[in-house]
Amino acid sequence: MDTLRIAGGQIDLTVGDITGNEAKIVEAMTWAETVAADVLVLPELTITGYPPDDLLLRPAFVEENRAVLARLAQRSGETVVIVGFVDSATEDSPRLDDAEPREVANAAALICRGEVKGIYHKVLLPNYGVFDEDRYFVPGNGDTQLWNVGGLAVGLSVCEDIWVADGPPAAQAEAGAQVLFNINGSPYHRGKGRVRSELLSRQAKNFGVPVVYVNRVGGQDELVFDGQSMVFDAEGQLIMRAAQFDEELFCFDLELGAAASIGEEVRSEARTDRSGDRSATIAPELGETEEAYRALVTGLDHYVSKNGFAEVVIGLSGGIDSALTATVAVDALGPSSVWCVAMPGPYSSDMSLRDAQDICERLGCRLSVIPIGDIFKAHLDALDDAFAGTETGIAEENLQARIRGAILMALSNKFGGMVVATGNKSEMAVGYATLYGDMAGGYSVLKDVLKTEVYELARWRNEQSKGLGEPIPQSVIDRPPSAELREDQVDTDSLPPYDQLDPILRRYVEHDESVDAIVAGGADADMVRRVVAMVDGNEYKRRQAAPGVRITLKAFGKDRRLAITRRDMRRD
Amino acid sequence: MDTLRIAGGQIDLTVGDITGNEAKIVEAMTWAETVAADVLVLPELTITGYPPDDLLLRPAFVEENRAVLARLAQRSGETVVIVGFVDSATEDSPRLDDAEPREVANAAALICRGEVKGIYHKVLLPNYGVFDEDRYFVPGNGDTQLWNVGGLAVGLSVCEDIWVADGPPAAQAEAGAQVLFNINGSPYHRGKGRVRSELLSRQAKNFGVPVVYVNRVGGQDELVFDGQSMVFDAEGQLIMRAAQFDEELFCFDLELGAAASIGEEVRSEARTDRSGDRSATIAPELGETEEAYRALVTGLDHYVSKNGFAEVVIGLSGGIDSALTATVAVDALGPSSVWCVAMPGPYSSDMSLRDAQDICERLGCRLSVIPIGDIFKAHLDALDDAFAGTETGIAEENLQARIRGAILMALSNKFGGMVVATGNKSEMAVGYATLYGDMAGGYSVLKDVLKTEVYELARWRNEQSKGLGEPIPQSVIDRPPSAELREDQVDTDSLPPYDQLDPILRRYVEHDESVDAIVAGGADADMVRRVVAMVDGNEYKRRQAAPGVRITLKAFGKDRRLAITRRDMRRD
Repeated sequence: MDTLRIAGGQIDLTVGDITGNEAKIVEAMTWAETVAADVLVLPELTITGYPPDDLLLRPAFVEENRAVLARLAQRSGETVVIVGFVDSATEDSPRLDDAEPREVANAAALICRGEVKGIYHKVLLPNYGVFDEDRYFVPGNGDTQLWNVGGLAVGLSVCEDIWVADGPPAAQAEAGAQVLFNINGSPYHRGKGRVRSELLSRQAKNFGVPVVYVNRVGGQDELVFDGQSMVFDAEGQLIMRAAQFDEELFCFDLELGAAASIGEEVRSEARTDRSGDRSATIAPELGETEEAYRALVTGLDHYVSKNGFAEVVIGLSGGIDSALTATVAVDALGPSSVWCVAMPGPYSSDMSLRDAQDICERLGCRLSVIPIGDIFKAHLDALDDAFAGTETGIAEENLQARIRGAILMALSNKFGGMVVATGNKSEMAVGYATLYGDMAGGYSVLKDVLKTEVYELARWRNEQSKGLGEPIPQSVIDRPPSAELREDQVDTDSLPPYDQLDPILRRYVEHDESVDAIVAGGADADMVRRVVAMVDGNEYKRRQAAPGVRITLKAFGKDRRLAITRRDMRRD
Repeated sequence: MDTLRIAGGQIDLTVGDITGNEAKIVEAMTWAETVAADVLVLPELTITGYPPDDLLLRPAFVEENRAVLARLAQRSGETVVIVGFVDSATEDSPRLDDAEPREVANAAALICRGEVKGIYHKVLLPNYGVFDEDRYFVPGNGDTQLWNVGGLAVGLSVCEDIWVADGPPAAQAEAGAQVLFNINGSPYHRGKGRVRSELLSRQAKNFGVPVVYVNRVGGQDELVFDGQSMVFDAEGQLIMRAAQFDEELFCFDLELGAAASIGEEVRSEARTDRSGDRSATIAPELGETEEAYRALVTGLDHYVSKNGFAEVVIGLSGGIDSALTATVAVDALGPSSVWCVAMPGPYSSDMSLRDAQDICERLGCRLSVIPIGDIFKAHLDALDDAFAGTETGIAEENLQARIRGAILMALSNKFGGMVVATGNKSEMAVGYATLYGDMAGGYSVLKDVLKTEVYELARWRNEQSKGLGEPIPQSVIDRPPSAELREDQVDTDSLPPYDQLDPILRRYVEHDESVDAIVAGGADADMVRRVVAMVDGNEYKRRQAAPGVRITLKAFGKDRRLAITRRDMRRD
């Protein structure tokens, strides 16, 4: 045999849902047999979902995942299935203290004809950004191993293993591998697809061996996995790409020259039941804005559905953030699953309420109007003594936001919908948001979207519906941003204009640049110091924020770990 | 010279506060010179504070810390100062992707007579529990190195290095070290002191060399460092122990036999300006309950003071949790910095309000009474249409808690005090707490204290004031726990009795035991399944909880990392 029929299962998985994931794997295996694939490649940690986090510290969980592997092996037929699982492993030098020793490996099994034919342990464990793999896994020993599938020499590695010049795939190529499989749980951020495809192309060319890269899809808390499984030939040319964000089972024939007949035997005979040819296709790439929008939709969709909610509740102010959030929600869940609530207060403009009504009409979703004036007044009455002699200020502003938060949560508690928070990354960064107020909610769509990107996404989304009724009224896009918590308030009372603020945030938050470096880049020194002080001083708010979709290299989630109690840049 | 005069600086440090930490180090150095110490030993990462987290990804921050080291070295005199800092280092195989490469080491410098005389890089990097050191640090190469201080051979290591049988200190002892210094940033949990002292005793005896262990003190977000710096002689006998939780500069003479005159020269001559003898003292050990109470007091005290608050605001229900929280707050900050607020609602008993008044009288702190009835009514009126035809239930109960949260936050916003949340670990575990309601606050005292331990601590604290006026009225301890959010409500309506609930939580949360294992331990199977489902189903609430003092091996903080979206034990 000089051709390998390769199937890939770019599927969605749920962390810890071993039973659900098993059913998805079985479905892919059944399909791979019907198309007579030689190999079916599944994503990293297929059985447990990625990332399983501290579930890995539970022996019963690891045992259950191994039981599933045994069942899958038993069920396996002619197709060699490469499936990710958690294998047991032993650490070299355990500690003497009460810390739990690491006892597992991030593994891939080759299963076929009723048996586990081989196991590979991931060697390079990412422990940066959102990744914590050193916390859990013992690395593989890195001994070079090839597998014989129908006479063809196959190399296998997991994710990070292929991200260095001299990792396991390089050694496998050196040893005579004719094709390299690499299984992944690689989350999306803006531009990640390009980074991946450039790297894989370079590696395939350097190795002189085709590379088959399979990634999962789907939302998992803050992470969205974007798929984009890819195959590069030995010259580094892209020959196959699966869809972005969508599940896809793909299958194609890869020419690999004469059988080398080396490596540990998985299945020595070629498959004889194959008919016809299957050629690879290249799915079109999404534009960068579209890609980000799709990530938002997928993240919300999967958070809602995987956590068992039937509906979301959104506070609709008439501003751009809540308008975009509602639009994403309708795209993710459909208009009948989105309940918008306008809660006009003493400083809300009529225009805002009209815009909220307009947005709901355009989106086709339900709107309730619940004025907060009387509740606000009841609060002020109760606080009359305590507040006596003080100036009206931030306390009264935040109260209005917190009343709205409490109303949304009451509707959630009463009817079961999940509240979606509507704040954006710029606000979260500088603390221009009320804790337990507009920050209230189970999930946040725009948490990692800077305000200028909110406009970019809103405009893009409107363009998609051009002539069919844009979801977001132009007046919402045009109006100067305001929290409407006091008379004639606009955001620029408290913040620099967003087109100046956002570049500073990108440099300080996403790239860890110093004040000096940002000023050297052309920003006003006083403004930079002010912004940095706001970012540092509001860590405590972000610590209590809802999770939200990550679309950048550094979101306000587990990719940015900073103490609240600290004094690094507070030069006061 | 056959005697080494050893000084230790068991000091409190703040993460990122390089300038403040420098001042503390200078103070200790000045003192060490006045007592003519040969060596001054300071805690791990003295200059940056521990743990510096993602500040380590900022080149400007690392540079600044190195500049401080240079200044400290310049200022150093005859005393050899061992000071922790972040050194630059280079990783062996950098990744090809856009992840930031690790470029620093967790280091200790030996400075003396105006110069940096030597540098050690930590070899074993803890990356479990609350620790993330693999995320940041390149490990030291582990080459065995001794230092010559006045002819005596000295070994130096950092924290984790001494926690394995065959780590760097073992090799240093083998190579002829006459004394081993080990610098630490080791956080407290119940029983940790005993674990440490048993290990250090065993190691000193195995090595046949005295071990000098110096740890920092002070609160740092969720962590409290408890000091307890210790020295063990070559037979493993404890010969010195510093205080728990308090700062202490200590100094004593250690007999070390004849000078070996090996190792890299730090200061070859013995010190000639020393007079008299200084003997070591052993501070008494605190009892386990007292220790936990001290941790709570220290954690709150330092969170409040290091974050610049002058006052705290506490919602006082008349129940045991808020009573203990207020007592801890008064012990930490003094009665004039604690503002208690009772917010009686439609279902609050008169008894609860009287108890709240009684508590405040006993503690000597201010009490405001702000009834929430009218605000609650205003909410129900506004929600009248939306709630039409529904049964009164959890939505209405949570509303009361959220109104109280909003009032406390309004007082905080208006007058600047920080709200302290009053919930305990049992509630946080099973979700018997209202997000944005009683969970609202900047910091939480009882977050890692199970309800049964709340009683233990309350009784212990009362005993300390026996005859002088116990802070917590007996009626508060005796009354069955109730949230008082509906008629005749008690906690056992919704939860198992706490003496059955807490052992299950300890096994499931703190020890990662499976349902089967917990049932095998004697608990009722249905109850265990119910409790586990509650714990798993409330991850989303804990994600938005305030930080709080950690007193167990596994708190609901960065030592327990679990996805919200998962389905591991939800067998429904």
